[in-house]
Amino acid sequence: MGDQSIGIGLVGCGVVGSGVVKLLVEQAALYRDRLGKSIELRAVLCRREDIGERTAQVPTGKLVHDADAFFKQIADCDIVIELAGGKTFALDIVRRSLAMGKHVVTANKALLAAHGAELFALARKHHVAIAYEASCAGGIPLITAMQFNLASNQINALYGILNGTCNYILTQMTEQGKDYATALREAQQQGFAEADPTLDVTGGDTSHKLAILASMAFGVTVTDRDIPCSGIDTLKLDDIHFAQELGYRIKLLAIGERTDAGLSLSVAPCFVHANQPLASVGGPFNAVSIFGHAVGHTLFYGRGAGQMPTASAVVGDLLNIACGSYERVFNQLAIWPDQGKPLHKLSDDQQMTRYYLRLNALDVPGVVSRFSGALGEEGISLAAVMQHEVNAGGFVPVVVVTHQTSVGAMRRAADRIASLDCINGRPVCIRIVDMPQG
Amino acid sequence: MGDQSIGIGLVGCGVVGSGVVKLLVEQAALYRDRLGKSIELRAVLCRREDIGERTAQVPTGKLVHDADAFFKQIADCDIVIELAGGKTFALDIVRRSLAMGKHVVTANKALLAAHGAELFALARKHHVAIAYEASCAGGIPLITAMQFNLASNQINALYGILNGTCNYILTQMTEQGKDYATALREAQQQGFAEADPTLDVTGGDTSHKLAILASMAFGVTVTDRDIPCSGIDTLKLDDIHFAQELGYRIKLLAIGERTDAGLSLSVAPCFVHANQPLASVGGPFNAVSIFGHAVGHTLFYGRGAGQMPTASAVVGDLLNIACGSYERVFNQLAIWPDQGKPLHKLSDDQQMTRYYLRLNALDVPGVVSRFSGALGEEGISLAAVMQHEVNAGGFVPVVVVTHQTSVGAMRRAADRIASLDCINGRPVCIRIVDMPQG
Repeated sequence: MGDQSIGIGLVGCGVVGSGVVKLLVEQAALYRDRLGKSIELRAVLCRREDIGERTAQVPTGKLVHDADAFFKQIADCDIVIELAGGKTFALDIVRRSLAMGKHVVTANKALLAAHGAELFALARKHHVAIAYEASCAGGIPLITAMQFNLASNQINALYGILNGTCNYILTQMTEQGKDYATALREAQQQGFAEADPTLDVTGGDTSHKLAILASMAFGVTVTDRDIPCSGIDTLKLDDIHFAQELGYRIKLLAIGERTDAGLSLSVAPCFVHANQPLASVGGPFNAVSIFGHAVGHTLFYGRGAGQMPTASAVVGDLLNIACGSYERVFNQLAIWPDQGKPLHKLSDDQQMTRYYLRLNALDVPGVVSRFSGALGEEGISLAAVMQHEVNAGGFVPVVVVTHQTSVGAMRRAADRIASLDCINGRPVCIRIVDMPQG
Repeated sequence: MGDQSIGIGLVGCGVVGSGVVKLLVEQAALYRDRLGKSIELRAVLCRREDIGERTAQVPTGKLVHDADAFFKQIADCDIVIELAGGKTFALDIVRRSLAMGKHVVTANKALLAAHGAELFALARKHHVAIAYEASCAGGIPLITAMQFNLASNQINALYGILNGTCNYILTQMTEQGKDYATALREAQQQGFAEADPTLDVTGGDTSHKLAILASMAFGVTVTDRDIPCSGIDTLKLDDIHFAQELGYRIKLLAIGERTDAGLSLSVAPCFVHANQPLASVGGPFNAVSIFGHAVGHTLFYGRGAGQMPTASAVVGDLLNIACGSYERVFNQLAIWPDQGKPLHKLSDDQQMTRYYLRLNALDVPGVVSRFSGALGEEGISLAAVMQHEVNAGGFVPVVVVTHQTSVGAMRRAADRIASLDCINGRPVCIRIVDMPQG
């Protein structure tokens, strides 16, 4: 435990970047005790000149505003933390850092989901590592768990609540009975949703994270473009209520399931049974249930975003690189995206699931037999039908729970039902998730 | 990735040991892919000659029955897995392995809780590592999370359900209304409790695990003898029901809390609010809520015992030692029991908490004022009093919820109350846990 120090460079001094600076400054003594060395922040690259209080804790003389100056100032550093975000400038920074033989810590899920395989291979070529715990589920040590502990397992399935914005909105809809628009507006007011929430509410952000997790869990090469994705932005309060009535909660789930015939991957709002631990994950929290062949069901829960939880994960990675452990796992345990096998996905006709359906049906005799006939033609059988008494004729909501069927059969059945003259519009179809026994 | 192999020795071929053999045999190809090397089981030390089917998967010629033969057969191996259990033979094996410069993987919580500091120092002296993920909470990667990820945090508090037997019994009492004796008997019939359940139900096993976790979380030297401990074996169904009525669940919790003035550590049945994720951890599952200063609330959930979950953790450790990563963390990140500071515990008068009390009070006027007077003399104020109407005189249960007070004040108040002639016996006092905002 000499007085060696470990020099690092930081790119980006936004919310998470300034959180990392805060940890490094305020917990310097703790990290020195734990590591036996000091961590020295040699340069912080911040493209905006006028970033104000966020850079207040950056040590004097360390703030730089262009990449060349940054790399010059960290010439003898071994570690770069990339928190710039986005896929252009960040990609340049990461490529350049790796090519210079520097380890990279990043929280950039979009970058890894799109360019992970290239960057991992580049890191390996230059004998350095990429650490990315903060890229999925913020402070939850999910990636480490897969790299280190669950490496002894064949992962059979994972189910994740990976977007705090969506989970906050769904919790408000479920617990307070607010509709989507109201819940979104309040989430924005309280800082749980961006001014432009598109990437969150459409499921895009969740599919980035699923691409990273599925690559690791199943040892295949996956990008977000491989993942069918629907969001919460079209979800109706009616379905939230019917879910509760049936004993379920609606959650935006990232799903990866492995069978002998292939993988199924998806991001969509799903019915989760109330007795599953995931069902009670509320507010902005994230959680992931992972089913390993030996370990059974494990669940990891925590804050999936926010300044300090994300900074916590970044600095955790930094400490593991600094002590030399992470590099070993990265180099030797071959569970990395760039070494994955090609993805073999199940077709829609091979993916089996149960469904919740809500139809707007004309309140006349014979309607049930007509839509159940349309389901029957696709081999789909009904487990339950629920129709509340209404006052008068016109269209009324009818809720159907099916037995197991395929994704393809349900799509075809929904087409058939939509074309019936006693049904108004296309039925709402939401997957009911049956997790493995574990 | 040549054809090098990594030779290992295994001590103990009981339930977990045979699970490890099963994983190593059945997943040999997976581990070779992930590690780039084969794992070769060179010797299995099993003291009983007639162990039968548990050793069926041990490769021919590898089973030995005495320690000398074992160490001879693994002379050129770098890793010993100790799954013998107990504190005598296992202590010899671990000392001998470390002294010979071999890394040790162990699931032996009792051994580490009692001799951890000595063994960690011995490992460091011989430049090897002890990996012990399986010692706490089975397949849940809790220790790795603290070593690797949460190293960036000051841990403020941890709350753990760490004994599956107790949690199974409590779940049966809560959900099925069974009394303790019945629930225990059924747990034994179903294999969730040992024939002699003493170590589990008295909280002893939980306190072993808390000693290990608290050492790591708070950077202090703790043994199980430092932890006041009470179990579930005296718990009455009445208290389970009153807890539910008040919006809580009773869980056997390992608690570690850090304040500027010192630590408080305890193992006891506690009230956990129903909206806390720990409250809904049912059956034989374990879970731990950890509150870090940066990461906030994280929770880890899974099977805390059982053959394959525990074997999963053991083999996870083995892979991390085999790839060279674990050793780096063990040697450099100083968050290990033997390097801990001395434990500074809060006194009973410094530990603040709320309480649930149940008294057997004579159903006569003036009783409430007498026991609330006894509480008042210790500065304890009442938040709620609940007494159900009963048919007739005699003793009736009265439930009290207090505001915050100290552990010491409550003990003295309970003494006062027990001495009142209108109260029958000593009141039941159960801590109500208020977890940090996180």
